[in-house]
Amino acid sequence: MTEPANSGASNVPSLLVDRPGASDEARADILKAAAIAFNARGFEATSIDDVADVLGASKGRIYHYYRSKADIFLDLHLESLRILIDRVGSIAARPDLGPVQRVREMCFAHAIEVMTRINYQKATMLGLNRFLLSVSAPYQEAARQRVNELRDEYEDLFVRVIAKGVEAGEFRPVEPRFASKPLLGALNYVANWYEEDRDDPLDAVEQIAAALADYCVRGLTQS
Amino acid sequence: MTEPANSGASNVPSLLVDRPGASDEARADILKAAAIAFNARGFEATSIDDVADVLGASKGRIYHYYRSKADIFLDLHLESLRILIDRVGSIAARPDLGPVQRVREMCFAHAIEVMTRINYQKATMLGLNRFLLSVSAPYQEAARQRVNELRDEYEDLFVRVIAKGVEAGEFRPVEPRFASKPLLGALNYVANWYEEDRDDPLDAVEQIAAALADYCVRGLTQS
Repeated sequence: MTEPANSGASNVPSLLVDRPGASDEARADILKAAAIAFNARGFEATSIDDVADVLGASKGRIYHYYRSKADIFLDLHLESLRILIDRVGSIAARPDLGPVQRVREMCFAHAIEVMTRINYQKATMLGLNRFLLSVSAPYQEAARQRVNELRDEYEDLFVRVIAKGVEAGEFRPVEPRFASKPLLGALNYVANWYEEDRDDPLDAVEQIAAALADYCVRGLTQS
Repeated sequence: MTEPANSGASNVPSLLVDRPGASDEARADILKAAAIAFNARGFEATSIDDVADVLGASKGRIYHYYRSKADIFLDLHLESLRILIDRVGSIAARPDLGPVQRVREMCFAHAIEVMTRINYQKATMLGLNRFLLSVSAPYQEAARQRVNELRDEYEDLFVRVIAKGVEAGEFRPVEPRFASKPLLGALNYVANWYEEDRDDPLDAVEQIAAALADYCVRGLTQS
């Protein structure tokens, strides 16, 4: 099995309106505020006004960057997946690590990401397809499609390394795609129980992530 | 540590309107239809009419049993937790099984429950607190509170058996409550990836559940 290039994150589109001066920073600020608003009220009940309130800015400022609430929600998913694929993909591609250590570090990085950007992850757990039944513009349909592709691509990062570990006899003879499910479930569930206001120092977050990664890897290894 | 009585499921209230002839069967039919409707549209966008459509009955029939959409949603959570606590609680209380085997069978039963009642589990994953900001009647507040208590009670079933396994040296020296999180995450995530329309025969469902239980238990055992 050849190692595919870590190509996913570089071609993730953004739904940011293409304007001179539309910065990554403005995008990040809006997405962060939107994630907080969506988590507090759910997607349907959240208005652009609510997002503006959290941001401490005017509605006009948000419309300068995004066409609609649906666009922000879609962009939140894209950005969240881009970050995960960036971080975890770079570990998945490391030839110096054996499969066991690689899966461990991938799980660790994923858990850290969920805990340190808990609002993003909670918002993406609100689901996507259900909320965007009314999405109709072609660019929105394309973005929704891209979210699903990126999700598969992200899962594939784990599937491939698990397959390598099985080939190498370092993991049990599990079916790699099936085995990736409880592993990702254990990690994603962090968004349900880790409190966003815990404000743990980084070493406490890392300790939690390491324990989770250990749990996930043990499920795969030979006993 | 003494084995607490499996007391949880017996005192789970229902939000069914107290009427002569209000049967468990009618309740189950409405909850099942509501779960399908909530999953298709989300909580806010679902109307009693939508539930009636899925049920193939009139809106009046539903109002005969439930006061509101919020009541149905609350009852869905209560019923789902009652079933889980019933099934898994009876395994947790079995003195003939050692902790490792007990956790395995508890995980197995939980996974089976998620797969065979996937609409209930998906609907409860929509979350509760966010959607019921407007709930104000005291009986609804009490029901919401009860849902959270039952969720804790359910988690405690796992925490206690994990603690026993640690005491007995059959599990690694994990912190039992912390260890219950990835375990439940791995199991609950099934609602995200198992397709409701797969219509697998029971032995296929059991095979999946056994593989998941195996994964979950391995995360806890000494290597």
